[in-house]
Amino acid sequence: MMEETTKSGKFGRKVVQVHEAQQKLMAYASPLEMENVPIRQSAGRRLAEDITAPHPFPAFNRSGMDGYAVIAADTGAARDEETVWLRVVDEIPCGFVSEAKITPGTAARIMTGAQVPEGADAVVMLEATMTREEDGVSWVGVRTVIQAGRNVTPRGFEIRSGDKVLEAGRQITAGDIAVLAAFGIAEIPVIRRPKAAIFATGSELLGVGDPLQPGKIRDSNSPMLEVLIREAGGEPVMLGAIADDLELARTKVEMALEAYDLVITIGGVSVGDYDIMGDLIREDPDGMLFNKVAMRPGSVTTAAVRGGTPIIALSGNPGACFVGFHLFAYPVLAAMQGAPSPFLPEGVAVLAKDYQKVNNFTRFVRARLELQDGVMHAYPASIDESSVMVTIKDSDCLLVVSPDERGLIAGSKVRFIKLP
Amino acid sequence: MMEETTKSGKFGRKVVQVHEAQQKLMAYASPLEMENVPIRQSAGRRLAEDITAPHPFPAFNRSGMDGYAVIAADTGAARDEETVWLRVVDEIPCGFVSEAKITPGTAARIMTGAQVPEGADAVVMLEATMTREEDGVSWVGVRTVIQAGRNVTPRGFEIRSGDKVLEAGRQITAGDIAVLAAFGIAEIPVIRRPKAAIFATGSELLGVGDPLQPGKIRDSNSPMLEVLIREAGGEPVMLGAIADDLELARTKVEMALEAYDLVITIGGVSVGDYDIMGDLIREDPDGMLFNKVAMRPGSVTTAAVRGGTPIIALSGNPGACFVGFHLFAYPVLAAMQGAPSPFLPEGVAVLAKDYQKVNNFTRFVRARLELQDGVMHAYPASIDESSVMVTIKDSDCLLVVSPDERGLIAGSKVRFIKLP
Repeated sequence: MMEETTKSGKFGRKVVQVHEAQQKLMAYASPLEMENVPIRQSAGRRLAEDITAPHPFPAFNRSGMDGYAVIAADTGAARDEETVWLRVVDEIPCGFVSEAKITPGTAARIMTGAQVPEGADAVVMLEATMTREEDGVSWVGVRTVIQAGRNVTPRGFEIRSGDKVLEAGRQITAGDIAVLAAFGIAEIPVIRRPKAAIFATGSELLGVGDPLQPGKIRDSNSPMLEVLIREAGGEPVMLGAIADDLELARTKVEMALEAYDLVITIGGVSVGDYDIMGDLIREDPDGMLFNKVAMRPGSVTTAAVRGGTPIIALSGNPGACFVGFHLFAYPVLAAMQGAPSPFLPEGVAVLAKDYQKVNNFTRFVRARLELQDGVMHAYPASIDESSVMVTIKDSDCLLVVSPDERGLIAGSKVRFIKLP
Repeated sequence: MMEETTKSGKFGRKVVQVHEAQQKLMAYASPLEMENVPIRQSAGRRLAEDITAPHPFPAFNRSGMDGYAVIAADTGAARDEETVWLRVVDEIPCGFVSEAKITPGTAARIMTGAQVPEGADAVVMLEATMTREEDGVSWVGVRTVIQAGRNVTPRGFEIRSGDKVLEAGRQITAGDIAVLAAFGIAEIPVIRRPKAAIFATGSELLGVGDPLQPGKIRDSNSPMLEVLIREAGGEPVMLGAIADDLELARTKVEMALEAYDLVITIGGVSVGDYDIMGDLIREDPDGMLFNKVAMRPGSVTTAAVRGGTPIIALSGNPGACFVGFHLFAYPVLAAMQGAPSPFLPEGVAVLAKDYQKVNNFTRFVRARLELQDGVMHAYPASIDESSVMVTIKDSDCLLVVSPDERGLIAGSKVRFIKLP
């Protein structure tokens, strides 16, 4: 029985580099179908198509000030400290269009944001004017020369009709919502959320509500992944822990592969574990994408594809599960939503303290970024063993320590992957 | 009528500095009540109390490897390239507790994550062993000397019982969820979400679904604020646009002040606008917090308090509305949720291109951050007039340009506020 385990082939796995493993998976992460959602539910979703402006913005010459719409040339006489008096022919609140046409010698009172009337080419701010009434006629006195165009935002100043304003694949932000609302786009074409099923494996796992039992642990990975998947724009589907009935387990995973866009299993990938992936792959050996990656933690991370649907088997070690999610599941979810750059962004920081653990595989070290006087510093977690859970919560990046480093000294440059 | 407007007192506003205005508001932003939410709904919420560990973690001495639990001293004889043979007395899968006690000369087969049996003080990895069967007895051969404690994560290694693991006020992340789940904390004490009512003002405003009409614009600020409030942990309550019936408008705002934790109005703060805040304050002049702030854009941003509830009147200019939200409404929402540092974080970056617009008020310039070889660079938006909406979407920070700058040269250091 023990002999059997050591011969199961898990020792003989072929190691692939992280980049290669990612590329193999990404071949099965195409953008999903489009759906329309109301604008109020669209924040955080990814656009399925480019959005172009249906009209210029602003749609009319807009006053940038409270004051008087005038013909700039009329104010020329104010050059010699003379007050130029113009007859006030209308008062234009926001949202109303004046029927008056401004002709030489006339002006219209106008509010910020209102449409500049025909004929006028500038707005004099209220504070630079005085008024008087004479025989029922209002006059405005202008004391400064004003240039044509002053305090007027011309039609199409921000965006012209037909301009591309938002790109397909873009994740919709609060600022994007303002743009979409301004253009009256009430239904937003987005890519539907990928449904990602999560299975935990391991008979040692208790639920979060269960009292602790000797030798057992509560499943902390599934609830963590549920949040990470949601934050990555996916729709997590919690399918619970797969326990002892192996035949039932296989059926469940197969059903999930048919029903969902991505299946993630946690645990069951180490030497000596029940080999759920091996079981699945045995029937279709070509479906195996990789089963050993040149990385720490999580070298046993495994991925396969079945009927076009990817399945990623993450390590049950919390640190390895966390790293594996961000390297492999995150980009799959992002690509399925049409993200133009599905991988997490990388950067360079200055290492804030020595880091000595070098491995023959690339190491992904949990760390915390801190900007100090314009320079980004990275603080590696003091304990970052694969099995350690507690330092995950304080990490906002993963340092990438390649095997050819001989230990990193504080002050040296280090590459990092920024966590979402 | 026009004369009346200019005398309404809006010209004579007393200017306060941003910091002072923020402090005045924050006096009315105390943490709200606690509520318990299921762990699955707790991500993003803020903890109402410290979380301490109800038990050590790990809760038992845990094997970090698949292999054999041994007494380290037994392997000493392997020093001379001799194989030490130990009798295998048990096989311990994850989640099970062995009843065997490891005594000198014996070992137990053990899986990663399983509880190390009594008597054993180290685990030899499977790959460093060989096995044989003799008369129904299993033996494991160990070829290397192993130190006590090797491949064993001791009880309480990550967290000791009673340790504070998560601080009150902390915003719950995916990693925190893992911690909470591991400790079996299924109901999480959080601060309830502040309810923030939004009113738009202005008869020029159309809804997002309305066809464009001459001189009018669609309300882009309310949908933007709805997203920003939600992202800030608040619960936005959309109360629509306040149009012509001023008496009704005042009643609506007064009702909102009684029903919600924060009221935000958009527009109606410029010279010449209907002065909704003035109307409210007239009855209770002591409630005015500020009505002019030494900032661009958004100098007319106004705030008051009534019955202990703050009301913030943001400018209707999209840029000013966006800046005003982040300087004033964001920290109020964060403080109401118990955030220990409710203000958005500040930092220093290198200016990537010249910025010349200096004002006699502090300027908050929409900009984009980009990390280049460890150094943070800031790119100010090319058009950042108060009225401009389109550059909001590409901004992830606000540069803080103080009035004593004489224009900023590319390469100089610049202070910024990081947007959420």
